[in-house]
Amino acid sequence: MRGPADPAVLDRVKTWRPYVEAKLGFRNHWYPALFSEEMEEGRFQSVMLLGEKILLSRQAGRVYAVRDRCLHRGVAFSARPECFAEGTVTCWYHGWTYRLADGRLCGVATEPGCSLVEKIKLETYPVREVQGVLFVFVGDIDPPDLGLDVPPGFLDEDLFPLGISRLVNANWRMGCENGFDSTHIIIHKDSIVIAAMDAVVPLGFALTPNSKMQTVTSDGAPKGVVDDFRENYTPIFEARIRGEHAFTPVGATGHKVTIFRVSIWLPCALMVENHPEPDVTQYEWYVPVDEDRHLYFQFLGKRGAITADDRERYRRIFHDLYVPLTLHGFNDDDVWAREAMEKFYGDDTGWIEERLFEPDLSVVEWRKLASRHNRGIQPPARSS
Amino acid sequence: MRGPADPAVLDRVKTWRPYVEAKLGFRNHWYPALFSEEMEEGRFQSVMLLGEKILLSRQAGRVYAVRDRCLHRGVAFSARPECFAEGTVTCWYHGWTYRLADGRLCGVATEPGCSLVEKIKLETYPVREVQGVLFVFVGDIDPPDLGLDVPPGFLDEDLFPLGISRLVNANWRMGCENGFDSTHIIIHKDSIVIAAMDAVVPLGFALTPNSKMQTVTSDGAPKGVVDDFRENYTPIFEARIRGEHAFTPVGATGHKVTIFRVSIWLPCALMVENHPEPDVTQYEWYVPVDEDRHLYFQFLGKRGAITADDRERYRRIFHDLYVPLTLHGFNDDDVWAREAMEKFYGDDTGWIEERLFEPDLSVVEWRKLASRHNRGIQPPARSS
Amino acid sequence: MRGPADPAVLDRVKTWRPYVEAKLGFRNHWYPALFSEEMEEGRFQSVMLLGEKILLSRQAGRVYAVRDRCLHRGVAFSARPECFAEGTVTCWYHGWTYRLADGRLCGVATEPGCSLVEKIKLETYPVREVQGVLFVFVGDIDPPDLGLDVPPGFLDEDLFPLGISRLVNANWRMGCENGFDSTHIIIHKDSIVIAAMDAVVPLGFALTPNSKMQTVTSDGAPKGVVDDFRENYTPIFEARIRGEHAFTPVGATGHKVTIFRVSIWLPCALMVENHPEPDVTQYEWYVPVDEDRHLYFQFLGKRGAITADDRERYRRIFHDLYVPLTLHGFNDDDVWAREAMEKFYGDDTGWIEERLFEPDLSVVEWRKLASRHNRGIQPPARSS
Repeated sequence: MRGPADPAVLDRVKTWRPYVEAKLGFRNHWYPALFSEEMEEGRFQSVMLLGEKILLSRQAGRVYAVRDRCLHRGVAFSARPECFAEGTVTCWYHGWTYRLADGRLCGVATEPGCSLVEKIKLETYPVREVQGVLFVFVGDIDPPDLGLDVPPGFLDEDLFPLGISRLVNANWRMGCENGFDSTHIIIHKDSIVIAAMDAVVPLGFALTPNSKMQTVTSDGAPKGVVDDFRENYTPIFEARIRGEHAFTPVGATGHKVTIFRVSIWLPCALMVENHPEPDVTQYEWYVPVDEDRHLYFQFLGKRGAITADDRERYRRIFHDLYVPLTLHGFNDDDVWAREAMEKFYGDDTGWIEERLFEPDLSVVEWRKLASRHNRGIQPPARSS
Repeated sequence: MRGPADPAVLDRVKTWRPYVEAKLGFRNHWYPALFSEEMEEGRFQSVMLLGEKILLSRQAGRVYAVRDRCLHRGVAFSARPECFAEGTVTCWYHGWTYRLADGRLCGVATEPGCSLVEKIKLETYPVREVQGVLFVFVGDIDPPDLGLDVPPGFLDEDLFPLGISRLVNANWRMGCENGFDSTHIIIHKDSIVIAAMDAVVPLGFALTPNSKMQTVTSDGAPKGVVDDFRENYTPIFEARIRGEHAFTPVGATGHKVTIFRVSIWLPCALMVENHPEPDVTQYEWYVPVDEDRHLYFQFLGKRGAITADDRERYRRIFHDLYVPLTLHGFNDDDVWAREAMEKFYGDDTGWIEERLFEPDLSVVEWRKLASRHNRGIQPPARSS
Repeated sequence: MRGPADPAVLDRVKTWRPYVEAKLGFRNHWYPALFSEEMEEGRFQSVMLLGEKILLSRQAGRVYAVRDRCLHRGVAFSARPECFAEGTVTCWYHGWTYRLADGRLCGVATEPGCSLVEKIKLETYPVREVQGVLFVFVGDIDPPDLGLDVPPGFLDEDLFPLGISRLVNANWRMGCENGFDSTHIIIHKDSIVIAAMDAVVPLGFALTPNSKMQTVTSDGAPKGVVDDFRENYTPIFEARIRGEHAFTPVGATGHKVTIFRVSIWLPCALMVENHPEPDVTQYEWYVPVDEDRHLYFQFLGKRGAITADDRERYRRIFHDLYVPLTLHGFNDDDVWAREAMEKFYGDDTGWIEERLFEPDLSVVEWRKLASRHNRGIQPPARSS
């Protein structure tokens, strides 16, 4: 639901109030916005991040980002992008022309004598392009190192990540919590990937007596929560209800999928190690778009694919196998589950009416870490 | 419109304020929810009644009803119903499993050691199955006898009712008032049923000097208002405007449809006796779904169809003749008229801007009776 | 956005506050509602003007207008118009029948003895039919002369106007301001009319040192603002950014389009003289429908087309040339630009966040004139 979080709800959520407030995400962080290949030289693209409409353009190789709204009459440049001079954007409506590098008004095509030239400026957004991804910084402070805002290893030179993205009709926190919650595994019991890869997915995970989350908050490194499945859980391959056998999933005796650890990192990224195969790591971002949508980025990063040949071979596996079987065949159920939660949390009441159980420890630790270590709460959407 | 009734409107509606407050209907009553034949063994169905989303399931013949929302994360069971053990429903998301009979959490498929088992429970709803209909009680009190909440005769053993249902985009009170108001008869002047049944429908009904409504409020019986057309009205077969002949409907000299009485009963049911034929009675329910929709149940009950042959013969007449010609051919205009009223009353202003005339006596008596004898007002919709 | 203007915005808009308040337009003015040829004898049409739903009907040649809402139950007559006697409308729902001339209830088809007859009345609207247009007066005062509410010359006998109309998804003020603002001319740089008519449209207009708007506010005449392009501007045929040539539009050396003056008149009409050709004047109305839509009337008035032959010849040119090439080919971009502004102004924030520049002098003068000389502000929409 649009607007600020319900104050009556906030008053009753003590331990992770900032997280509940952050309907539009956390400010002063880096977020993936587009894949490099979506941004061609000389073209413009508009994205919405944390409720802000942002215009990106690649000019002479470099990508710039400015607020996608002319200062004059508030229209979006992206409605009909015009570029009369390299490194600038001209508003289609009255010819106001801005430098992309600093956002300054540098000319007005319809009125050469305009006194506002060089006096006013658009908001600009820092951009970094790395690993085939355009990251945008949404905030007011000097941007910290990008490496602080991605899961460990994502920027490593020997990691070769390929990915897809799509818009999901659920708040970004539904994405984080669905991804990091271990017991939602049951929704994947009928995934096509199971038969296709001769794998088996457990029905659930019983907590072990010594299970605990590892919270990573050291300075100068990404901040997150790590759930080590090898220590925290015993996988469950049979559902028992009232002491009696109730259900066993198909393939329960097959080859096991080996997941070592699942972790979640500020501002909104998940890492699943050794998935779907031992030398591959799945990275996901649930980027806040507005109050009820997020942009879902899914990457599968291959270690050690260094040569062009290695990469080409991995690219084929990625497109022919991983995209249909895991990024869709497996994760489509997650998309659907997040959207199913949206109604309950969308009007804020879910945060106080929910009833958590023991394995939600992982979710609880994430909420607490995010509440403490974020760099700011994005305020309710301005007219963007 | 969603949310509570406008307080400024309520303050100006003195005589039937509770009725105006009851946007979502009256609580602590029985309502028809589904036809028996819509609820197969082992299947699940979700319905919304009075703003509450309710899951029904038939297990070993009996039908149960629980709130269609898992206590854990608030998702609807019905989004992907799972049943691992007879008499239970398992939430597709994390395997929480509830007994349908009492709503208690009786197991968790993903975490056998969950400490909440047997400690927490879903809201349950009493169900009664009779005359081919599943009635659900929405309320907090011990449910009174179903017979108190249906029009007289509906549960009689020698009545054989058959029916259809559909969703109408208007508040439930638009249904009641359209149905019970005698002068809306003019909207049926072009109905196909008139030609088909060699009948005539009057243009209107002039009040007789001694016309009055009969209010039925004795204990231990349904409560309602009866409008006896034989005593209260003279049918009008010619419209005169400014003293001059203006309009005569087609077929005004044909065979007359004989309607003896029309009556309306708490919580929201109409009875039209001897319609469309002398030994048939039409029963209708306008069941509140949410603020701006109701579920329209239409039954035609045949008296004395006892044997299987009688019933089969009536079933053919019902499907081949009554459904197309009267339940649709005649009543589709009522559906349309209720939806046409919705804008005026939907933002509550209609209740104070309306201008009633003499024959609206029937509507007025119904509003007063409903205001006095309902068992509770359903509060504004919770996140359901 | 529906409802009254944001008070926090109004407090910060000092100079043209009434204009910002007038989301639904100015009350007590005449507005074009339909073309004469859209209103056949005996037929009914419903239009929405300034948030009020109005029923028009032509009876014995004359056109009447009443509020399109029955006093009884608030339904729209137009949902199924019934006419049992000339000069009246009968409500389809209960037969209430009103005289169109004075709005009085003059009979009830379903209840001949109704005591309300001749006692209650519908709101009526003055109508004038002239130049092939039906004008409706929306207000409470004695209507002033129609000639005070149309641009100069529109009612002249030697003017032969032909036109089209369409609904635009933007507030009416977006129409006025887009039309009267001189520098939006740049949006037309790729219009098909340019090649087709061997014309050239400048990129913009540089203000001359002595440029000023002429404000016309004398009694007994239309009130408006006149922008004389010959004195106020030097047309710009080349965009220069940072002192360097950036862009020249196609055809910049062709035959020039000659526009002498553009002017805007209360309540919401634009006049473009000598456009698209010297002996033709374009008149436009941006009639408020509701908060976020206006009815866009476009007329091209031919001077001196007196004989039937002249008129037939002009009619052919209008339909075959002007409608496709200018009213659509040129002005479709204006429609699109107004809709692009709607988001910024639609929640009222645009009025305080906008950043005007020198050539917006014309817009500023219009806002001030409209704020001072309107005859009333239409209040927030009633349930219509």
